[in-house]
Amino acid sequence: MGEALKGLKRTVMCGELRENSIGNTITAMGWVQKKRNLGGLVFVDLRDRTGLLQVVFGEEINEDAFTKADTVKSEYCIAVTGKIVKREAPNENMPTGMVELLGENIKILSESETPPIYIKENLDAGENIRLKYRYLDLRRPDMQKIFMIRHKTAKVIRDFLDEKGFLEIETPILGKSTPEGARDYLVPSRNFNGKFYALPQSPQLLKQLLMVSGFDKYFQIAKCFRDEDLRANRQPEFTQVDMELSFVEEDDVILLNEELIKKVFKEIAGVDVKTPIERMPYKTAMEKYGSDKPDLRFGMEINDLSEVVKDTEFKVFKDTLENGGSVRAIKAEGCGSMGRKQIDKLGDFVKTFKAKGLAWIAVKENEIKSPIAKFFTEEQLKSIVTAIDAKVNDLILIVADKDNIVFKSLGELRLHLAKEMELLKNNKEFRFVWVTEFPLLSYNEEEKRFQAEHHPFTMPMDEDIKYLESDPGRVRAKAYDIVLNGEELGGGSIRIHETDLQEKMLKVLGFTKERAWNSFGFLLEAFNYGPPPHGGLAYGFDRLTMFLASTENIKDVIAFPKNQNAACVMTEAPNVVDDKQLDELGISVLKEEN
Amino acid sequence: MGEALKGLKRTVMCGELRENSIGNTITAMGWVQKKRNLGGLVFVDLRDRTGLLQVVFGEEINEDAFTKADTVKSEYCIAVTGKIVKREAPNENMPTGMVELLGENIKILSESETPPIYIKENLDAGENIRLKYRYLDLRRPDMQKIFMIRHKTAKVIRDFLDEKGFLEIETPILGKSTPEGARDYLVPSRNFNGKFYALPQSPQLLKQLLMVSGFDKYFQIAKCFRDEDLRANRQPEFTQVDMELSFVEEDDVILLNEELIKKVFKEIAGVDVKTPIERMPYKTAMEKYGSDKPDLRFGMEINDLSEVVKDTEFKVFKDTLENGGSVRAIKAEGCGSMGRKQIDKLGDFVKTFKAKGLAWIAVKENEIKSPIAKFFTEEQLKSIVTAIDAKVNDLILIVADKDNIVFKSLGELRLHLAKEMELLKNNKEFRFVWVTEFPLLSYNEEEKRFQAEHHPFTMPMDEDIKYLESDPGRVRAKAYDIVLNGEELGGGSIRIHETDLQEKMLKVLGFTKERAWNSFGFLLEAFNYGPPPHGGLAYGFDRLTMFLASTENIKDVIAFPKNQNAACVMTEAPNVVDDKQLDELGISVLKEEN
Repeated sequence: MGEALKGLKRTVMCGELRENSIGNTITAMGWVQKKRNLGGLVFVDLRDRTGLLQVVFGEEINEDAFTKADTVKSEYCIAVTGKIVKREAPNENMPTGMVELLGENIKILSESETPPIYIKENLDAGENIRLKYRYLDLRRPDMQKIFMIRHKTAKVIRDFLDEKGFLEIETPILGKSTPEGARDYLVPSRNFNGKFYALPQSPQLLKQLLMVSGFDKYFQIAKCFRDEDLRANRQPEFTQVDMELSFVEEDDVILLNEELIKKVFKEIAGVDVKTPIERMPYKTAMEKYGSDKPDLRFGMEINDLSEVVKDTEFKVFKDTLENGGSVRAIKAEGCGSMGRKQIDKLGDFVKTFKAKGLAWIAVKENEIKSPIAKFFTEEQLKSIVTAIDAKVNDLILIVADKDNIVFKSLGELRLHLAKEMELLKNNKEFRFVWVTEFPLLSYNEEEKRFQAEHHPFTMPMDEDIKYLESDPGRVRAKAYDIVLNGEELGGGSIRIHETDLQEKMLKVLGFTKERAWNSFGFLLEAFNYGPPPHGGLAYGFDRLTMFLASTENIKDVIAFPKNQNAACVMTEAPNVVDDKQLDELGISVLKEEN
Repeated sequence: MGEALKGLKRTVMCGELRENSIGNTITAMGWVQKKRNLGGLVFVDLRDRTGLLQVVFGEEINEDAFTKADTVKSEYCIAVTGKIVKREAPNENMPTGMVELLGENIKILSESETPPIYIKENLDAGENIRLKYRYLDLRRPDMQKIFMIRHKTAKVIRDFLDEKGFLEIETPILGKSTPEGARDYLVPSRNFNGKFYALPQSPQLLKQLLMVSGFDKYFQIAKCFRDEDLRANRQPEFTQVDMELSFVEEDDVILLNEELIKKVFKEIAGVDVKTPIERMPYKTAMEKYGSDKPDLRFGMEINDLSEVVKDTEFKVFKDTLENGGSVRAIKAEGCGSMGRKQIDKLGDFVKTFKAKGLAWIAVKENEIKSPIAKFFTEEQLKSIVTAIDAKVNDLILIVADKDNIVFKSLGELRLHLAKEMELLKNNKEFRFVWVTEFPLLSYNEEEKRFQAEHHPFTMPMDEDIKYLESDPGRVRAKAYDIVLNGEELGGGSIRIHETDLQEKMLKVLGFTKERAWNSFGFLLEAFNYGPPPHGGLAYGFDRLTMFLASTENIKDVIAFPKNQNAACVMTEAPNVVDDKQLDELGISVLKEEN
């Protein structure tokens, strides 16, 4: 059993001490990072959230303290009182390295067994053990830094939005299950057996109702939930910076958020974000980068060769073009001498995105090398090379297929090659782009129906509204995503605020009027009472923190994350519960798995 | 269909306009509070979140605008552009009453049907219709004010804690079901059929683990959940201002929170809270006020008459005292002439708290009147009157029973009488008190076992720790509640941070070692690795907002509250879900209720 504080007060944090504290008697508390007994002196590196401080215990300083200090081990929690003195051999690698603490008194507040993981930066330990002993993993300085960044980021965002007149308003976690989203987490009701709450996937409809209520500007740093199979960097519960504004159009939301982004990246990461941020219509993003979240930190844009190759005899290209597809290519600079095997691998890569194959043309000093050269005249080959502006030693990679397959496969190939070619090595850039003019709807081949590209509450663009029923695929939305380095940081839209239009939209999505009202009646009804035009945006706060903290693992920015099976390794949630609990909820377990 | 903004920007908020804006051309947007056509002029009171602005439309100002303005009705959402002029007949009841807006242009952004409730302050409408049309209820200025207060309160708290070095760290909503609390809301797992997550009742254990992690000072404005039958002013989900600090004792937590309380009440309500706040041991609170949340805004303390009456012949008192009970009384000043019927009602009142009866003594000018007078000598009667310092026309109300019944019934009677006597009418005081030295455990008669008074992680007081196993009921805790005007605003404690002591505590609560480790193993294990001494506190944020916003209904401070059946009247949550959803979760509904 450890010693009690009994009135002992901490007076400083370890990492703050500098030469101006020399001569002060202080009390520090923290953990033993390291202890050494060197020639009759005990040295302890004492660690708290702010850093390390060297403490020296010696018989000449205080014999009792020295004796006790010699018993401590790594991760013991101790309190030390003594005088700060100048360090004889300064350690310039430590911010406190010019001083040390002469230990006159030590309390061992609690002892520690040998921890199962090292408490140090850049730990190379398995994920499972890190998650099981999360409380120790979080003790590591790099993890502590991340949560300081996360805290500060939320603070900067809240301060900014408060200053702009936004009100943070909490919306319920026990909500209603509505169709058209991802899979809901359900909560059985005890009062109404057989009925269920759903955990919110976002506060979308409620924030819209807050606009109907005249709150004018709302925000919330809100927990959201999706019961989906977890891909990398997905968690069942995640945090959104969610906002909604009344009396606005796209530009208002975008400009405000550019100001916010600028502030956050400056204050947290010291990065100057240039505004206005580039805007790119969805169509351009797809055509040039094969993605609605283009990474603009490097070129290698997609080129359309359809026009150039339309008169060749190459059947693959001809057929593709005749069937309404396209022939497009990217140029891998300096890859002209890539070996056949490597290129075959790239072919396999694009096939995972349903491309039928990958054609290639290598530009050599004196020749143009390509397995499909024989189908082209020399002039045709040259015009391809010219069209894509290829130079000696460039490799042209071509996919011919339906547009969506061409875009997807070349877009992914572009990213893949950038990684292989290490184009982004040491690149510290934060490259933002707004992607705009998204399609309102996309056709779901499996379900044979249109579905909302963002969500069913997105306003169509004025000039396209007339096609909503006649040609839904053609309608563009008043939607915008903010993309950073090829990842979606956030997205939003101007919303529908009219009952008729909202009903029409739901009808296009296949809702009968009855089902529309059963699911979204409260919203449709609310629009009867003078709704203001409104729109908003939501950021993935976890992802934002990942960028600011320079980590690529979402688990690093969540204090107690779930593993790939949505389980908490530390607490062992989910777990079995008492039958009595299930009885009260009126449910029974049909099948059990472990 | 309403008109679109098409680039029209709002330039001002309605409620901000003053004489210094005269001459400016502005654009305001909001809702029609009232429209009148008076002698060829249309007057519209335009409302937004900030207040009302009078707009005048006339043929002479702009004919088109006048004609259109004449078509608007209450709650239409409109945008008006025009010049601010001095009002000829100022309205001093309106902050903007010195000016008006000459409407040169009006857009009707959306129309409104006649709302089912009035959009006005102090609405007298049924709760059900208010909840069903919550988006309209929230449009009312008094409701809007509440959410501005709530937002600002959270902001002040966050700023304060940030400045003090606290980190806001989010803990999961999908947690583990643990025993010893209230009933959990459960979430069936799709990955592990037959297992369940639980929504957290508080982040208690996780915040303790954050202390083990060395985060030093944590806070969170956190959603918490309890699936209990809803009493008035309870909601299934509620918000806690939750904090935890390392290397602290009771005093540290208390002093910090006095600073916080002072700041919040000053900045939000303009109230000066005197610090240090009075502290009162639990025992005193029970003996003097019959409550662990004493309302100190008025006197009427409980007096112990046991000593005074111990030698009387009155059997009821004698038996009570012989059986270890007590005889105690309160004095209702000026109630000496209360009628028999009224006093009988008070007797019925105390019986609802299990008291067997209520004895009374009325002090008259020349006599002492009491139905039990015959059992006492005149001297004995006088000594009772003296003991309680009763004056002419005071009424002494006596209960003789086991202590806990005496305290409860006289404590409640005291509050009841204060209400009847209107002692707190027009009382604007905020009277705080810390209640300390709570019992660690209380005996649950039904379950025939001890249970934790606060929770099983509370540290016993040093001097009582030795009784933990031999005489658990005697052990006091390092716990403290902050009480305001007779309501618990928050509470906390210093926590156990030793595996052995925590195991012992769980054993006293009836846990086998196996069950203790199954339930709380992650905490017990964490304490093996140098845990710091730590403690914390949590405020009910909803209740805090109720005080600051001067409302007595918790539903007023929650944007989308549930009704008494834990249902949302507006969205109709909870609701039935598809069988497919239940299949995936491996559960089935046994019984259905509606």
